[in-house]
Amino acid sequence: MTQFVKGRGAKSGLPPGTLVHIGETTDRPVTIHVMDYDGEGCRESQLQSVSQCIPYRDARTVTWINVDSVQQADIIQQLGECFGLHPLVMEDILNTTQRPKLEVYGDYLFVVMKMLHNNGHSEVRAEQVCFILGPNHVLSFQEGIAGDVFDPVRIRLRGGKGRIRAAGADYLLYALIDAIVDNYFVVLEQLGEEIEALEDEVVSRPTPHTVRRIHGMKRRMIFLRRVVWPLREVIASLQRGESDLIQDATQVYLRDVYDHTIQAMDSIDTFRDMLSGILDVYLSSLSNRMNEIMKFLTIIGTIFIPLTFIVGVYGMNFQNIPELKWQWGYYAVIGLMAVIAGGMLVYFKRKRWL
Amino acid sequence: MTQFVKGRGAKSGLPPGTLVHIGETTDRPVTIHVMDYDGEGCRESQLQSVSQCIPYRDARTVTWINVDSVQQADIIQQLGECFGLHPLVMEDILNTTQRPKLEVYGDYLFVVMKMLHNNGHSEVRAEQVCFILGPNHVLSFQEGIAGDVFDPVRIRLRGGKGRIRAAGADYLLYALIDAIVDNYFVVLEQLGEEIEALEDEVVSRPTPHTVRRIHGMKRRMIFLRRVVWPLREVIASLQRGESDLIQDATQVYLRDVYDHTIQAMDSIDTFRDMLSGILDVYLSSLSNRMNEIMKFLTIIGTIFIPLTFIVGVYGMNFQNIPELKWQWGYYAVIGLMAVIAGGMLVYFKRKRWL
Amino acid sequence: MTQFVKGRGAKSGLPPGTLVHIGETTDRPVTIHVMDYDGEGCRESQLQSVSQCIPYRDARTVTWINVDSVQQADIIQQLGECFGLHPLVMEDILNTTQRPKLEVYGDYLFVVMKMLHNNGHSEVRAEQVCFILGPNHVLSFQEGIAGDVFDPVRIRLRGGKGRIRAAGADYLLYALIDAIVDNYFVVLEQLGEEIEALEDEVVSRPTPHTVRRIHGMKRRMIFLRRVVWPLREVIASLQRGESDLIQDATQVYLRDVYDHTIQAMDSIDTFRDMLSGILDVYLSSLSNRMNEIMKFLTIIGTIFIPLTFIVGVYGMNFQNIPELKWQWGYYAVIGLMAVIAGGMLVYFKRKRWL
Amino acid sequence: MTQFVKGRGAKSGLPPGTLVHIGETTDRPVTIHVMDYDGEGCRESQLQSVSQCIPYRDARTVTWINVDSVQQADIIQQLGECFGLHPLVMEDILNTTQRPKLEVYGDYLFVVMKMLHNNGHSEVRAEQVCFILGPNHVLSFQEGIAGDVFDPVRIRLRGGKGRIRAAGADYLLYALIDAIVDNYFVVLEQLGEEIEALEDEVVSRPTPHTVRRIHGMKRRMIFLRRVVWPLREVIASLQRGESDLIQDATQVYLRDVYDHTIQAMDSIDTFRDMLSGILDVYLSSLSNRMNEIMKFLTIIGTIFIPLTFIVGVYGMNFQNIPELKWQWGYYAVIGLMAVIAGGMLVYFKRKRWL
Amino acid sequence: MTQFVKGRGAKSGLPPGTLVHIGETTDRPVTIHVMDYDGEGCRESQLQSVSQCIPYRDARTVTWINVDSVQQADIIQQLGECFGLHPLVMEDILNTTQRPKLEVYGDYLFVVMKMLHNNGHSEVRAEQVCFILGPNHVLSFQEGIAGDVFDPVRIRLRGGKGRIRAAGADYLLYALIDAIVDNYFVVLEQLGEEIEALEDEVVSRPTPHTVRRIHGMKRRMIFLRRVVWPLREVIASLQRGESDLIQDATQVYLRDVYDHTIQAMDSIDTFRDMLSGILDVYLSSLSNRMNEIMKFLTIIGTIFIPLTFIVGVYGMNFQNIPELKWQWGYYAVIGLMAVIAGGMLVYFKRKRWL
Repeated sequence: MTQFVKGRGAKSGLPPGTLVHIGETTDRPVTIHVMDYDGEGCRESQLQSVSQCIPYRDARTVTWINVDSVQQADIIQQLGECFGLHPLVMEDILNTTQRPKLEVYGDYLFVVMKMLHNNGHSEVRAEQVCFILGPNHVLSFQEGIAGDVFDPVRIRLRGGKGRIRAAGADYLLYALIDAIVDNYFVVLEQLGEEIEALEDEVVSRPTPHTVRRIHGMKRRMIFLRRVVWPLREVIASLQRGESDLIQDATQVYLRDVYDHTIQAMDSIDTFRDMLSGILDVYLSSLSNRMNEIMKFLTIIGTIFIPLTFIVGVYGMNFQNIPELKWQWGYYAVIGLMAVIAGGMLVYFKRKRWL
Repeated sequence: MTQFVKGRGAKSGLPPGTLVHIGETTDRPVTIHVMDYDGEGCRESQLQSVSQCIPYRDARTVTWINVDSVQQADIIQQLGECFGLHPLVMEDILNTTQRPKLEVYGDYLFVVMKMLHNNGHSEVRAEQVCFILGPNHVLSFQEGIAGDVFDPVRIRLRGGKGRIRAAGADYLLYALIDAIVDNYFVVLEQLGEEIEALEDEVVSRPTPHTVRRIHGMKRRMIFLRRVVWPLREVIASLQRGESDLIQDATQVYLRDVYDHTIQAMDSIDTFRDMLSGILDVYLSSLSNRMNEIMKFLTIIGTIFIPLTFIVGVYGMNFQNIPELKWQWGYYAVIGLMAVIAGGMLVYFKRKRWL
Repeated sequence: MTQFVKGRGAKSGLPPGTLVHIGETTDRPVTIHVMDYDGEGCRESQLQSVSQCIPYRDARTVTWINVDSVQQADIIQQLGECFGLHPLVMEDILNTTQRPKLEVYGDYLFVVMKMLHNNGHSEVRAEQVCFILGPNHVLSFQEGIAGDVFDPVRIRLRGGKGRIRAAGADYLLYALIDAIVDNYFVVLEQLGEEIEALEDEVVSRPTPHTVRRIHGMKRRMIFLRRVVWPLREVIASLQRGESDLIQDATQVYLRDVYDHTIQAMDSIDTFRDMLSGILDVYLSSLSNRMNEIMKFLTIIGTIFIPLTFIVGVYGMNFQNIPELKWQWGYYAVIGLMAVIAGGMLVYFKRKRWL
Repeated sequence: MTQFVKGRGAKSGLPPGTLVHIGETTDRPVTIHVMDYDGEGCRESQLQSVSQCIPYRDARTVTWINVDSVQQADIIQQLGECFGLHPLVMEDILNTTQRPKLEVYGDYLFVVMKMLHNNGHSEVRAEQVCFILGPNHVLSFQEGIAGDVFDPVRIRLRGGKGRIRAAGADYLLYALIDAIVDNYFVVLEQLGEEIEALEDEVVSRPTPHTVRRIHGMKRRMIFLRRVVWPLREVIASLQRGESDLIQDATQVYLRDVYDHTIQAMDSIDTFRDMLSGILDVYLSSLSNRMNEIMKFLTIIGTIFIPLTFIVGVYGMNFQNIPELKWQWGYYAVIGLMAVIAGGMLVYFKRKRWL
Repeated sequence: MTQFVKGRGAKSGLPPGTLVHIGETTDRPVTIHVMDYDGEGCRESQLQSVSQCIPYRDARTVTWINVDSVQQADIIQQLGECFGLHPLVMEDILNTTQRPKLEVYGDYLFVVMKMLHNNGHSEVRAEQVCFILGPNHVLSFQEGIAGDVFDPVRIRLRGGKGRIRAAGADYLLYALIDAIVDNYFVVLEQLGEEIEALEDEVVSRPTPHTVRRIHGMKRRMIFLRRVVWPLREVIASLQRGESDLIQDATQVYLRDVYDHTIQAMDSIDTFRDMLSGILDVYLSSLSNRMNEIMKFLTIIGTIFIPLTFIVGVYGMNFQNIPELKWQWGYYAVIGLMAVIAGGMLVYFKRKRWL
């Protein structure tokens, strides 16, 4: 959770535009993958150096340059200079603790988003993805922790299915954003199942660990909210068509993605409400159990405490206790105690404690 | 609750506009029912194939084509192509996990709503209904789970009562929306009765199950809120008359439906407040009961514990305990204990524990 | 509370504009009372049939037609037709479950409000009042449950005091609305006194019923909020002077009523905050009482349990217990126990449990 | 708290503009104090009758007429007529249950504010002050409960320090408002100290009265919020310079007062947050204390209950209990019990209950 | 926390523009440090008197005059008069209890901010910094409690790295603001680590002090929120470029700072949510512990209470208790008690209390 702040402090005091990688470092080498296409076909290649990008910059075909892992500041700097990016943009690409945002520069758009991964143990990870949309190219920069969700887009580009190859760079940007947002639902569906499992657990066999699991899930929801909420605004800005880089035909598609983010927000809010409800049920089941235990102790205690007193009375060693000498004294006392215990039980029955 | 997300994940990665049914599947066959009318009369028919729709498209009469169940993507696709719908619209019709929304396309409006069913066991189901409003036709697409609430509209169309046959397609759309919103009140009324029953239960005989029932009802309210809240905006947009497809005369009717949705929202919010109050009463009755039990145990315990100690003292086997040899020692001890018990009772009385 | 929904469901499926009375029915006959006045004088009459209204419609004098009880749909219909009301307006007049609202029609305004009655047992009832403001007439329709609060207006009309007889129909409407809003303060004042009584009760002698009374009062506040909140908007709209039917001179008076509704809202919110505080004090006094009880039990228990053990030891029947044969054994044990009890008391004193 | 409603009900039914004093009545006589000044000097006088005001109305000097106590409706009426006030304004001056507000009339402004008094026992009183700003005069009407906070302004007027004598009536109005708002900070500072004292009390020696004191303070905050919150809007309206009566040079000063009200709001909100935190600490300290008490009882109980059972066993009177005849039986049992008690203590140690 | 109000009251009643220092006083002498630079070089000096500032006022080079500690009202007054500041601005500089704000005067901007210090013991201190941005100078006024965070800016000015020396006074203002905001993240990171430590503490070994530490942290968050929240608005206003003093090229940098403040707000909100969660976990762990303790007591109590009763029965001294004379009576009773204890254990096992 604190990953939104971690590492930020290290940069304090450096001049703006200083290129320093902030975030987790991995061992994976940096790869630059290029897909260059037009209506006719699609050419893929893995670049060895940044300088190989230059021809794509001014080509009339649409080019998607995907940089996986932003750990090496020098690569980002060279690419940034090649495509004329502002130093602050390069700084933001390297800083993986950004919030989702859209910034409009003269001849390109800069979009920051979060890609979600669910590693199967209800641990949700966010990986930052930055996009640069130029007139006929899209640059994408992945934080590079755990792979991406762009394979369906790649397949469509290779196969030429749908209108993707015929459309421009703005449609490519849409397709990539759509792939990320679609993946949110995969993650949300898994979390939804876990929440339902938690709900069952609370009703059938709550343990002290349950409350910690509920809070873990709540924190995951806070986390997701922070990922999705600003995205809504980003896509709304894109869709309003304020930039010439987005064509009219693409706007209706962006409206569709916008709907999806609203729906994701809705689901997150519903999950939060459900978790609050689960917590309430848990807490009231704790209280109920406490009540039940107390009731049991009280019943046992209040039945036997007076009886124990009575047997104590006849255990006293006074020389003159007439009852002790009665022939049927013992049986009378046993009878008396049976009456008292019975009366108590009747009393509890009427109080509905039994 | 999680039905808003369920199945969404399956579509992740498919290109936009891919027609895949998302939602529950039923065995009911798909039916296409047509009502074609003008001021003079109303003709009904059950279509066998989508191609039979074509003549209605350009007819001057008003046509209502009702498709029950959107399970078969090919039927939606053929209809969509016949009426010139955007691929994203067709995709949304097939996806039954939409939020209520209004989308304005050049020559038609696209409305998504939820129809409610209450199966009598306080289980509320939402069924998606999509409308396409064209110049002289309304297409309606039902999710097809449990019948619809449009029979009153059909009867009015057949009978020609009211102004419905004289008015255009926009009035038909209004009539259908109105039928759905009117039905919300039927469902809300049933829920309101159950909430009042819950309230009585909490006051008279609360059980551990009560809290679960309260939370079940709360979740139903969250669910209804999500159904009704966005509808408000949809109808407000329709009513503002931004589209030429809605005539001025119809707007005053839409304002009426708008009022009804506001009122439904109001009722839902009131129900939520009531449920919170019921929960508070439940929890404080739990605490009260706990207090009562503890008080009982404490009174019994604190009266008998000192007495038991005293009888224990005279049960000791010391050779030299003078009191044991007193003639009236036993009676003195009994008297002493009566005094102590009486003192305790007076003390409790004054503390108002009795 | 559920009166906002009750009965609404019954109308589901009927065409819009169908005139059906929704709400409570009473035995009181329907009365139509007319006050017709100008600067010179004021003429009152009780109408036998609706047709007698016709002359007033086009008269140059100002006319106030007050219909008490809207149970008979036919009377509303005849009046509506006489004054050219829209069918939806007539439908709304008959439906007593409306929210306060203002609707602007071409040549008349339609206002729905709630009049409050406090029957003295802290039971607040809302009665619907609808107003139609025409160029020189005001129609008022009362739900007809428990009389009205318009007598001061009638007296002023008869007496000709103030500017009321000299002003137009819009000023009459203002005077009627003002009478209703003024009455809110009477009701709020009574509720305020009951809340202060509740507060005293919680501090001095809380009972399990207290919490139910607090919640009952909270619900009353939710109810009042729903009555007053939308009214604010209604009066703000009237005051903005969007309609020609409201003269400029009347607007400053409407601003005054607007202030009053804001103040009523303020009081309701303050009462809600006070009730939450009272509830918190109640709950923490419950906890305190529990603590006190537990402390008492613990002190008694922990003092006597060890002592009872000691007397038990010397109640054992072992043949060889040397202490039993000591001359002063009994007194030594009594002394030991006194020391233990004293030590306990000192310990509790230091722990501040005593 | 309920002083915002009290007395309002009494006016229900009277025609608008009826002059009735609503609020607390005191014995203090009504005084009319006039300060009349220009750049050259300042003349003060105490008026005997309202008619003496007339010369000041049209004088070119700036005049401040301060009316202390608004109990006598006739004085307000005469003054109002002299300065041409609207009947509703006069009515509002007499009604001391107003919210802070600004009303713009053609040639004068009407401002309602609350002046705070802290009587040293953490009891905060609000006193209503109304201002009328005319072209060259300011009328101020005090509720007249406990003196005012305007002495610093009077001293400046007399001494001619600062720009006050050189500036117009609008600057005088600003100076009076500023004096009131500055005094809010005096009151807030005192309350802040009491809140810090409460905080210490909760941590060191909480009593059942503490929670009542916390809630008393919370209510004071609700009360202050209602006094300050609408004032923000009032001053913002003044500062926006919509009226010609406020000169441009004064607006920068009003912006300063605006900042102060925002800061007062901020402090109130912070105090509310602090009080919530204090309440939470109090409640959790209650729970902790309960836990501690229960733990103590449980430890004492669970150690001695088994031992008491054992000594009971050897207190039985069976003729054949072999252990009773053992030479060292007594010591063996004592040893056994020491082992059991020791084991228990070790168990509790490991459970961290000790 | 109350430092926002403290000392404010002392000024109540003084005329506006009176120069009085409000806030903590320290022993550090007041220093005036000047950095004067252009593209070519940077000259530093420590001024002895305010009059030495005059040449810088109209110089064409950019000048940064940093005043450390605002305790001496006369120095501020002389500086203010030299640079033509409004009396209210001077008053605000001296008052260290301001909220962050931006005020636009004709030829200069006035910015108030808070600089944070974390003294390593999770105690966060805010120090007020005011900026005056003129055409070619920046004045900064520090409250002067604990040093500043501007050293990186000074080093850049001296070294001439980056574009700082080439840019104007507006860029210098940006650089100083950026240094302050960057430092927020240093403080937030430290707090984040402490929150995570608190979280571990709550799960592994909660103590009564934990809740106080959680609330201390919560208050720190409320405090930070008040520092950062209004800053957002300040920077947004600067960035909107409403003043000519901010050049277009600087606006993109201000947008970057704006993003950072949003991110700081986000972190603070997340921390608050986390703290609420931690508190909930703490409270439910208290309840769990209570349940565990009660369960233990109940089990021990309910097993031994009946057994103690039985041994009491056979400790009675009746002359005729046949069982006492049985040969194997003692063993039979021991067996009976073993059966009862075993049955209890099985019962508890089935109830899942063991």
